[in-house]
Amino acid sequence: MSVLQEISPNVKNIKQSEYEVLASRASQIEKELSQGVRKPYKELIDVCWCDPHSVGVKPLTFVRQVLAACVYPQLMKSHELPLDVRQRAQWLLGRCDGGSVGSYNAQPCIPEIIEKVSEFTTRRDGGVPSYPENIFISTGSQWAIMDILNVLVNSEASPKTGVLTPAPCHVTSMMSITALGAAAVPYYLTEEQGWTLQVEELQRALESAKGVCNPVALYVINPGNPAGLVQSRKSMQEVIRFASEKRLFLLADEVYQDFVYGENREFVSYKRVLAEMGPPYSDTVELVSFHSTSKGFMGECGMRGGYVELVNLDPAVQKHIFKLISKSSCTPVLAQMALDLMVNPPQPGDPSYPLYNQQTQHIKNMLAQNVKTTHEVLNSLPGVISQPVEGGAFVFPRVFLPPKAIQKAEEEGMQPDTFYCVRLLEETGVLCCPGSEFEQKEGTYHIRFCITASQDIVKEVLRHLTTFHTKFMKDFS
Amino acid sequence: MSVLQEISPNVKNIKQSEYEVLASRASQIEKELSQGVRKPYKELIDVCWCDPHSVGVKPLTFVRQVLAACVYPQLMKSHELPLDVRQRAQWLLGRCDGGSVGSYNAQPCIPEIIEKVSEFTTRRDGGVPSYPENIFISTGSQWAIMDILNVLVNSEASPKTGVLTPAPCHVTSMMSITALGAAAVPYYLTEEQGWTLQVEELQRALESAKGVCNPVALYVINPGNPAGLVQSRKSMQEVIRFASEKRLFLLADEVYQDFVYGENREFVSYKRVLAEMGPPYSDTVELVSFHSTSKGFMGECGMRGGYVELVNLDPAVQKHIFKLISKSSCTPVLAQMALDLMVNPPQPGDPSYPLYNQQTQHIKNMLAQNVKTTHEVLNSLPGVISQPVEGGAFVFPRVFLPPKAIQKAEEEGMQPDTFYCVRLLEETGVLCCPGSEFEQKEGTYHIRFCITASQDIVKEVLRHLTTFHTKFMKDFS
Repeated sequence: MSVLQEISPNVKNIKQSEYEVLASRASQIEKELSQGVRKPYKELIDVCWCDPHSVGVKPLTFVRQVLAACVYPQLMKSHELPLDVRQRAQWLLGRCDGGSVGSYNAQPCIPEIIEKVSEFTTRRDGGVPSYPENIFISTGSQWAIMDILNVLVNSEASPKTGVLTPAPCHVTSMMSITALGAAAVPYYLTEEQGWTLQVEELQRALESAKGVCNPVALYVINPGNPAGLVQSRKSMQEVIRFASEKRLFLLADEVYQDFVYGENREFVSYKRVLAEMGPPYSDTVELVSFHSTSKGFMGECGMRGGYVELVNLDPAVQKHIFKLISKSSCTPVLAQMALDLMVNPPQPGDPSYPLYNQQTQHIKNMLAQNVKTTHEVLNSLPGVISQPVEGGAFVFPRVFLPPKAIQKAEEEGMQPDTFYCVRLLEETGVLCCPGSEFEQKEGTYHIRFCITASQDIVKEVLRHLTTFHTKFMKDFS
Repeated sequence: MSVLQEISPNVKNIKQSEYEVLASRASQIEKELSQGVRKPYKELIDVCWCDPHSVGVKPLTFVRQVLAACVYPQLMKSHELPLDVRQRAQWLLGRCDGGSVGSYNAQPCIPEIIEKVSEFTTRRDGGVPSYPENIFISTGSQWAIMDILNVLVNSEASPKTGVLTPAPCHVTSMMSITALGAAAVPYYLTEEQGWTLQVEELQRALESAKGVCNPVALYVINPGNPAGLVQSRKSMQEVIRFASEKRLFLLADEVYQDFVYGENREFVSYKRVLAEMGPPYSDTVELVSFHSTSKGFMGECGMRGGYVELVNLDPAVQKHIFKLISKSSCTPVLAQMALDLMVNPPQPGDPSYPLYNQQTQHIKNMLAQNVKTTHEVLNSLPGVISQPVEGGAFVFPRVFLPPKAIQKAEEEGMQPDTFYCVRLLEETGVLCCPGSEFEQKEGTYHIRFCITASQDIVKEVLRHLTTFHTKFMKDFS
């Protein structure tokens, strides 16, 4: 008998991901394929996550050259690397204790890189001032969200601390809320109107929490994930007014800020909108914004870097946040460097600029094309409606599953859309995430897949999906 | 007024580190020095932490070459890198989705690297079997300890969950215990006997917890930190019997396993001793062992890599642990690769072996010399007793502070040994940690500094310390 009969109930309560069913079947299939078992496909295509390098997107040369030179400074002796690469590596190593990326360096992060981040957000936000002392570098945005929640959530509180979360919502954020003993209070985005956020729905969600938990924070994802909305200024102003009125702390997940496709849409940060609204909002609403090196053009998911900017925080609370993050030693130093390269890319005139510009333009065009093709193909399928994807990395079409399919799923003890995804995997080798992973309105079913992939891969996915879906709908009609 | 009046009491309870006082003064001094303020020294020497590259230890060439080639695979086209470097990089990239270190890759970690870790611990432990499914790669050992505690600690339990911790103890582990709402129950190591661990003291500590908290785990650090003991097999057997009898989960922090200096001392893992004890111990005592790429010869602190091996865990509990760690996406991919290089270094006959061997031997000799010199110098100082350093990265001498110094410290609102360290910093530019950071017996005072530094730096530290200490003792006599 275990000495651990009483493990943390919060950890016990973390919902096992729907994706696990798929992931374990996928690894079985991979084994079978490698053993020569014949299937209608030769390899799996995993488009569950936004993981661009795994699906044909190439790393940016400038980024990799600078990081390689930082890892192995002897490379700087050769003139094969462009001058600006060598200069940047030199500058970055000059910020490291002992000139090595192997030092812990400043805890929790290198101050000169934070200054660069601060200059970046000031530029991005049209001059809204940013202060280095309100920024920290994190080991990816998910860990950052966890750190902030760790401070926000009082695990001893009764009723529990609550966090208003969008539905659908990125799954790891919800897992973090549970892991800390808090309660997620879903507010539903309006799918029929392109997944827009309605303030009346925030109101309803808040009221639904009465007697259940004590909401202290409102989590927004813009551009959306899995829903591909990009919020308008007006919508963001409404959210800010609501947060102000209800005294909610705003958590703005803005990691997809580089990916906006919708016509007449642009990314505007919550910080900027807040500043433009003026007092009393601009100096009272407490806001935390998250960004990441995993998303955007570099797509360096494996580095685990990101940053957090704190706005209007109570200095005492901010001190506790910094105490907590300093505890875990530093953020991976190479991730800090990748962040520097993200906020401070080559400029026209720099030796690396032409190639950098060519590579990022290529990604931009590829994504725009992927969004267009995907939208067309999905909406041509019977029983599938896909809202316009204005931004982000995913499509999240609604699939109207036939009653017979739903019944069959129930018999197999699966969510209906998980059942759909398992079948898709078995028959085509394509791995998508079921909507049940992300919270969705009862009785609706979705799938999510990533479009930050090469055009060839996206086309292959759509081809498989079309064949599979047509057959599936027929089989269960 | 903040919407956050009620932040997490656990975070509030994290003790502000004694080191903070020193760190903020140190950064002020650095600013003054850069502004040309004249001081008796030109730069600071920070030997607070084990951060080898920051204090003159050079990175291992093999490690940096492989990692650079993984970051920028074009390097493999040139024959400037040795063949085994290129082959290893090729193998590692072959384990990455899309052949890129920028992919998330397997969550939470690359299975083939886990297999290598498993082979390593089997070799290290004289054939005691190791199973890949019981191992995971972590973002440094401190995060790993936090993850395990997260599962062990029931934040809703009353009385609180308790963890027996050595005194003195590595500070971040204690902070993690507090951050999770658990209680640290100190057991004191016997300084006069070389900081040995006495089972009677474990017993006393356990009894002291009655009515205060419910101890579920026993945390041991071997080789020690900050105390430089290396446990004997006999001592480890006693600890295991105690854990078995009291039904305590064993957490073995073994990150300094490469650093053993004591004559007739060798590192033996808890896992090995447990296996050698046979049933009932070998198949019942639940053990978690931590290791890290930050410590050992590579000293790559900035990578943030390590691994955890689980022994005899209840499968249900183990499942929860894996669920929790999978939540946070992957461990930094380059850290996973560094771990592969740590557990699988060049072998005789490999092109990189001669240089690798020369560099690691150099570090070994340097450390042995540092230990010897430090021990001699410290014990020659009046009012200083330093126990033999058998292993680890630190010396932790006791300093018998004069009553006048203690009184002065009280007047300035500081712990006496913090006061000593502040003075040392001001007068010599040397940054050491005060013993009050680590838990120590009441009325005793210590300082800690790192000896995993170049011989020149260690000699410089000792020279400054000797001059300072002599003057300090005279000033307050």
